[in-house]
Amino acid sequence: MDCLFCKIAAGTIPAKQIYQDDLVIAFDDIQPQAAQHKLIIPRKHIATLNDLSPNDTHLIGHMVQTASKLANDIGIAHDGYRLVINCNPHGGQAVYHIHVHLLGGRQLHWPPG
Amino acid sequence: MDCLFCKIAAGTIPAKQIYQDDLVIAFDDIQPQAAQHKLIIPRKHIATLNDLSPNDTHLIGHMVQTASKLANDIGIAHDGYRLVINCNPHGGQAVYHIHVHLLGGRQLHWPPG
Repeated sequence: MDCLFCKIAAGTIPAKQIYQDDLVIAFDDIQPQAAQHKLIIPRKHIATLNDLSPNDTHLIGHMVQTASKLANDIGIAHDGYRLVINCNPHGGQAVYHIHVHLLGGRQLHWPPG
Repeated sequence: MDCLFCKIAAGTIPAKQIYQDDLVIAFDDIQPQAAQHKLIIPRKHIATLNDLSPNDTHLIGHMVQTASKLANDIGIAHDGYRLVINCNPHGGQAVYHIHVHLLGGRQLHWPPG
């Protein structure tokens, strides 16, 4: 499949990976919007939030749990952070393989874009 | 417990509720940042993302699945939407009972706040 994030998951395109397990991979966003900006993706290809199946509840929960764990690991949990998932053009989705943005290391503002 | 969202979940403070099940409740944000701006909260009190336990993976996954389902129900799934979870001051968390923001009905911008 011609999907950038599937290629990163397969290791055929390099990324600054910071975590991986059987279900997910996490790496630095190449266009960071904060001092800390990580992406958490599933190994499984799911294009958008609209394409989640009922069987994916644990997977998407694990993505959020992983983001929270990484926030702790990189030292931004106490001050705080923001998780963002974009869907389709109005959401500003840039890569059509579902991903959680983890942003921290600065004050995040409101509205969220 | 003196928690605004626990009171909304218990029905002792009113909200424009649009969905509820055994695990979660969804209602309009009272300070909407987009044409559509809903909040999805668990009935169970969890203060922040940092307070999730390993047992909460299904619950947080169900919150995201519910947000996605609601996006479809209110007609913003195709154009797109953004999900946001804030944690602690840098994340801009305003109520210390975990919640997913669902925003759509307009173009969301980047960075996300």
